[in-house]
Amino acid sequence: MKTEVLISTPSEKSYFQPLSTYAQLNWLEELNEDQLDRILPSVEAIFAFTWPKGLDAKALSKMGKLRFIQCELAGVNSIPFRELGESVMVSSNAGAYSQEVAEYAWGLLLAASKRIVRYDAALRAPDFVRPPAPELGKQVILLKGKTLGVVGYGGIGRTVAAIGKSFGMRICAFSRRTTNDDVELLQGKSGLEKLLRSSDACVLALPLSKLTRDMIGAKELAVMKANGIIVNIARAEIVNESALYDHLVKNPDFVYATDVWWTEDGKESFSPRLPFLKLDNFLGSPHTSGPSALATGEPVRHAVDNLLRFLKHETPQNVVNRSEYV
Amino acid sequence: MKTEVLISTPSEKSYFQPLSTYAQLNWLEELNEDQLDRILPSVEAIFAFTWPKGLDAKALSKMGKLRFIQCELAGVNSIPFRELGESVMVSSNAGAYSQEVAEYAWGLLLAASKRIVRYDAALRAPDFVRPPAPELGKQVILLKGKTLGVVGYGGIGRTVAAIGKSFGMRICAFSRRTTNDDVELLQGKSGLEKLLRSSDACVLALPLSKLTRDMIGAKELAVMKANGIIVNIARAEIVNESALYDHLVKNPDFVYATDVWWTEDGKESFSPRLPFLKLDNFLGSPHTSGPSALATGEPVRHAVDNLLRFLKHETPQNVVNRSEYV
Repeated sequence: MKTEVLISTPSEKSYFQPLSTYAQLNWLEELNEDQLDRILPSVEAIFAFTWPKGLDAKALSKMGKLRFIQCELAGVNSIPFRELGESVMVSSNAGAYSQEVAEYAWGLLLAASKRIVRYDAALRAPDFVRPPAPELGKQVILLKGKTLGVVGYGGIGRTVAAIGKSFGMRICAFSRRTTNDDVELLQGKSGLEKLLRSSDACVLALPLSKLTRDMIGAKELAVMKANGIIVNIARAEIVNESALYDHLVKNPDFVYATDVWWTEDGKESFSPRLPFLKLDNFLGSPHTSGPSALATGEPVRHAVDNLLRFLKHETPQNVVNRSEYV
Repeated sequence: MKTEVLISTPSEKSYFQPLSTYAQLNWLEELNEDQLDRILPSVEAIFAFTWPKGLDAKALSKMGKLRFIQCELAGVNSIPFRELGESVMVSSNAGAYSQEVAEYAWGLLLAASKRIVRYDAALRAPDFVRPPAPELGKQVILLKGKTLGVVGYGGIGRTVAAIGKSFGMRICAFSRRTTNDDVELLQGKSGLEKLLRSSDACVLALPLSKLTRDMIGAKELAVMKANGIIVNIARAEIVNESALYDHLVKNPDFVYATDVWWTEDGKESFSPRLPFLKLDNFLGSPHTSGPSALATGEPVRHAVDNLLRFLKHETPQNVVNRSEYV
């Protein structure tokens, strides 16, 4: 008998074809309430882009057979861990976005260090006067010989670091795991502080969990260089919104460049509560890095492959540690 | 007897200290007309940032002993070759700006391919609505596996190419010289066409000379991909202004990202004759790459070292081929 799988995704159905030998595929958005109610008790696996509203606590309580959830996004922070039985495995889609998100992180990092967004805007103003060359020259941050802090050394972090080496940067990596790469590995609270203190630019590339929420607050920002750079392509909530706003206002040479935004009512909001978008040292893109990877079809293939592992009774990859999320 | 050297530079005097054993240093900006007139006949070498207005044809005609000109800039296009005796050697300062200018080129390339300038501006508008993720994803150009055309494979071009490799790009290099690097070397008119045709992004990194002025015109632009990118960190005049403007208007997905601007009355103008700054697919910075290198002091040291070679009767490096400029 085939395993019942419930799928909620914006991706095309054809990507899921490899599963059909092992699974009965049910497309959540095509089911009416009755149909959904009827299959819930037999569903053993869920494939979800972000967690679907239809699968609330009540629906979950009816899913006695649920054993596995495969996320299409790299982060699992939308999963309602508290309402899931402890035996339900959840796999992230880590690694599927590494190249595209790392490229985007570099776009933000260079836009910040070379002031490209501000210069283009200044040139478009009718009253543009070029500052004297020596002044211009000092406004730009050179990367060669400088220190890049990579906070979270998974697929994205490692790709960000490898590109950093080609710029001649020294790499500090904050990671729970060890590595044989030629980077300075820093761990724990003191390791993070050392990384922030020594970095000229910092890329946040770690999942949002209980452990990482508000990881960068007033104290952490205070140890960074006055002309430091933070690039966030992970999740906004890793950085404390108010602390960051105060820091940017007080340190006009510090730049925060982000592709990710704080959530409001569970949804990422592109008009933040605090007026970040009025600041010259804030730089934003509308969560574009992930979609640029999705456009390749690679993330959905990667996630489908992992669900296939589960269906074939192999061990799925990227199973997250539930205790970090509840 | 010490060699008479005439110096015109915004750089600090201390950089020239190493020359004092061999040379009598004269600071052009400190001389009045009479003083200048008196030393012109004995000057054997000139050190110049850009060519000084004071040294016009009449002044040059009095410099019977002039044998060497060292430029502080990488490009020698401001030098009045027509008014110089054929025996006067001119050295560029090629190589002194490689790292900083290559970093800047990458800033422009990523800002273009990741649309970072446009997104930041869009987010700051009061009516911002995020496009659906699949649409957003398609607006971004991924670099891995794509082709980077490096036009001019000197110090800057090689550094640009090395960084391109770390992004997983295939490199085509247009160069007169051969190379052992792992790049596809393309030469001559047909080589340039092949490079432009196959490149997803193109970096112009070659000197402005008779041979390169208007090198990229309507015909060359026409063979490029509709969503192609040109990054110019060399000299604006390598690209034909009108042809580029027409191309950008007709091809809204094509991006021209430039740090260098067309000259008006011999001076780089940051408000171009054609309304490039009204276009969304034009991206500009106010000739910042060179100054960012100058801020390190490295270019002036590099140029002083080369002038020292001349003074010590060694062979100076970077002597340019006069016939390419007259």
